[in-house]
Amino acid sequence: MVETVKSYIGTLSSHDIAAIQEIFAADATVEDPVGSEPHVGMDAIREFYLNGFSTKLKAELTGDVRCAGNSAAFPFFVTFDAGPSRMRVEVIDVFTFDEKGKVQSMKAYWGEGNCSVV
Amino acid sequence: MVETVKSYIGTLSSHDIAAIQEIFAADATVEDPVGSEPHVGMDAIREFYLNGFSTKLKAELTGDVRCAGNSAAFPFFVTFDAGPSRMRVEVIDVFTFDEKGKVQSMKAYWGEGNCSVV
Repeated sequence: MVETVKSYIGTLSSHDIAAIQEIFAADATVEDPVGSEPHVGMDAIREFYLNGFSTKLKAELTGDVRCAGNSAAFPFFVTFDAGPSRMRVEVIDVFTFDEKGKVQSMKAYWGEGNCSVV
Repeated sequence: MVETVKSYIGTLSSHDIAAIQEIFAADATVEDPVGSEPHVGMDAIREFYLNGFSTKLKAELTGDVRCAGNSAAFPFFVTFDAGPSRMRVEVIDVFTFDEKGKVQSMKAYWGEGNCSVV
């Protein structure tokens, strides 16, 4: 699970959509941020990440990956272009894994209080 | 939610069991670590925290509290006595809140890879 998380964080910066498809189960769900409508299934997940990549997304872990049961939680930040500004958001993601080691669900915890212009 | 989290982290160090009872809903669940049997209801939650306090527990946030929907996720570490050793564990907790602002569920993400002797 730690290797998958590190690969995921690298992929957010390298914009490798094929790697994203390797990481997630075909019927996975992505809820980003928590409380919003989830993206369900690979087509919706691809579209979500391609949108992110188009903002020159970069990501970096800021602490341990915490593994517990079939889950992993990890703190990181992303930076991305938002109009004329570059934004930074502090995020915590929680992944759950299926029996094949694919990510079955992703929940991203962040809100207004975690956003700043850089 | 941020204030409740900061109060919670303070309480883990001050060992104020009355404050713990203020923070959690009467029928709350505490799953620590994720994948273990949850503690359900105030009596079980009290017992869980009193056990923790008996180890000279201390806690400190290590990053932003991330609020999203009715949830908050936050990274921190705890230190505690384990026999002759002092242990440190890197944790991420996820709280969900009820409509009264009480914590309805707590999930603690941590595993062996997050533990060290200090």
